[in-house]
Amino acid sequence: MAPTTNGRVLFAAVPSGFPIPGETTVYDTSQTIDIDTTHLNGGFLVKTLVVSVDPYMRGRMRSPEKKMYGAPFTLDAPIDGYGVGVVQRSEHNDVAPGKYVSGILPHQEYSVLLNMQGLNFLQKHPNLPWTVYVGAAGVPGKTAYMAWREFSRAKKGEVAFITTGAGSVGSRCNSMVIQLAKRDGLKVIASAGSEEKREFMKELGADIAFNYKTTDTRDVLQREGPIDIYWDNVGGDVLDAALEHAAVYARFLNLHNTFAKSLIINGILVHRLEAKYDAEFYATIPAALAEGDIKYREDVTHGLETVGDAILRVQQGRNTGKAVVIVAEE
Amino acid sequence: MAPTTNGRVLFAAVPSGFPIPGETTVYDTSQTIDIDTTHLNGGFLVKTLVVSVDPYMRGRMRSPEKKMYGAPFTLDAPIDGYGVGVVQRSEHNDVAPGKYVSGILPHQEYSVLLNMQGLNFLQKHPNLPWTVYVGAAGVPGKTAYMAWREFSRAKKGEVAFITTGAGSVGSRCNSMVIQLAKRDGLKVIASAGSEEKREFMKELGADIAFNYKTTDTRDVLQREGPIDIYWDNVGGDVLDAALEHAAVYARFLNLHNTFAKSLIINGILVHRLEAKYDAEFYATIPAALAEGDIKYREDVTHGLETVGDAILRVQQGRNTGKAVVIVAEE
Repeated sequence: MAPTTNGRVLFAAVPSGFPIPGETTVYDTSQTIDIDTTHLNGGFLVKTLVVSVDPYMRGRMRSPEKKMYGAPFTLDAPIDGYGVGVVQRSEHNDVAPGKYVSGILPHQEYSVLLNMQGLNFLQKHPNLPWTVYVGAAGVPGKTAYMAWREFSRAKKGEVAFITTGAGSVGSRCNSMVIQLAKRDGLKVIASAGSEEKREFMKELGADIAFNYKTTDTRDVLQREGPIDIYWDNVGGDVLDAALEHAAVYARFLNLHNTFAKSLIINGILVHRLEAKYDAEFYATIPAALAEGDIKYREDVTHGLETVGDAILRVQQGRNTGKAVVIVAEE
Repeated sequence: MAPTTNGRVLFAAVPSGFPIPGETTVYDTSQTIDIDTTHLNGGFLVKTLVVSVDPYMRGRMRSPEKKMYGAPFTLDAPIDGYGVGVVQRSEHNDVAPGKYVSGILPHQEYSVLLNMQGLNFLQKHPNLPWTVYVGAAGVPGKTAYMAWREFSRAKKGEVAFITTGAGSVGSRCNSMVIQLAKRDGLKVIASAGSEEKREFMKELGADIAFNYKTTDTRDVLQREGPIDIYWDNVGGDVLDAALEHAAVYARFLNLHNTFAKSLIINGILVHRLEAKYDAEFYATIPAALAEGDIKYREDVTHGLETVGDAILRVQQGRNTGKAVVIVAEE
């Protein structure tokens, strides 16, 4: 067969604001490939079937000096991302022609790959198109399903609040989370930034769906909360509102960019720890304080008549140690 | 004995900004008490020795309609808070004169209490003053000690970042946390809002202590991080900076007001869940999608030449479903 065009999407320049088609990403047709004869070098030839376009890609469009999550794209090389392909030819023992692979693929029509690094073999359900395997049956769907299973501790009758943020990582997970929450018997409050998304959430089974641009989130949570599970896709002020209306022992599942480190945030209220640690505390800490092994500072005044001023100093941050008022000697 | 003045601190008016001594809290000497003869009604008489003054008290100075954490103070009644007292007389079987009690006490010199609700008996270490029992050996110290033991999962050689916020709940815990972290063999980065606090943190053993008003937090964390444990007393932008410089599997211990619900925030990255859930996901979800039991939406375009525009639409939030580009048919 004669060589054919091997179209690809090049990272042409670092965008300053939004990435501009034709400027920062350029579709390029200058390369050709002969599918039957191109050298495989012990690897295999993949024909790309579908590629996914996701918000996180903007973060990779940067100069390599900038440290961020995710490797930067290489200037003048094809961008890459999640995709599905089919193996056309192979010199690799483990990769047979006709196999489907999903994972990180270059944005080009045909690619010679040397190994399965970043790829997995995929079985197709006969009634699903390939597109779904980078969406509801791909990373976004997996994120929703696995995080819900691992972290939600959902109990029938609880209240879940599920947000959809424009442009945030994994925002397409949310439609699945709404459905998983309903399957588990929860009351679902869902917010989105348009009337059309609001209606879709309602269709998916959300008990309360509202447009956060026209309805006050705090009003809704005040009326319909407190919330036991918060699926956070937006952070910022909505996260604050969710915190204010969280039930005790609520679980927050957070996909906001900065949380991509699998960290754990524990809210602390000492009274819920006392049963476990009181004996140990009194057996060790007062002695350590008395002997100076652990240091402390106090800001002591004398007499209840000094309380008002002490309160004010504490509110203004002017106290120089733990504020205590000595009311009387024994 | 003749009646003596029973001084007390009254909640006189709801403050609009800072609480004003003499206006919103008033020290009142209009009441007297005869310590030897006052009726106990089956309860006991406590002489207040010390009371604690804490930032959270401002939140209780509100009108009772406002829903917030912590009961509102009652207008024209004494305020209350953590304190230590000694029992003078008792008609209560479990409460002997001479016993020390700590817990919630009214801000008045003498109080007749009917039961031990909110109070505990206290043993005094011979070399510690009572003031310490509402500070480093009281709730702030307990909070530091117990939260560190329960949540920090500290390992020798790890990096802890400990912040001190002006006026935030439990800010006095921090000096103890610094010392506990050093005992556990961690490198400690500590921030505070004044030169004087910075020097105190250095004295306590902090390896890096900086004034966040004159030194950029992100610069310090970039140089000295990433951080494995974050003791958060401030929230806001410092929390964001800590998130950016968190190590994978970092633990955030959060005392910021809004976190007082013992909630758990789990950061999610699907790749860390796949080993556990991949089989289950592929066994259930694609079939549910194919049969319409779980719905999904896609925003499909055709050909790699549409990728640039798809990226832009996703960045602008204009996509109407998961953005996918079909590159080729099989």
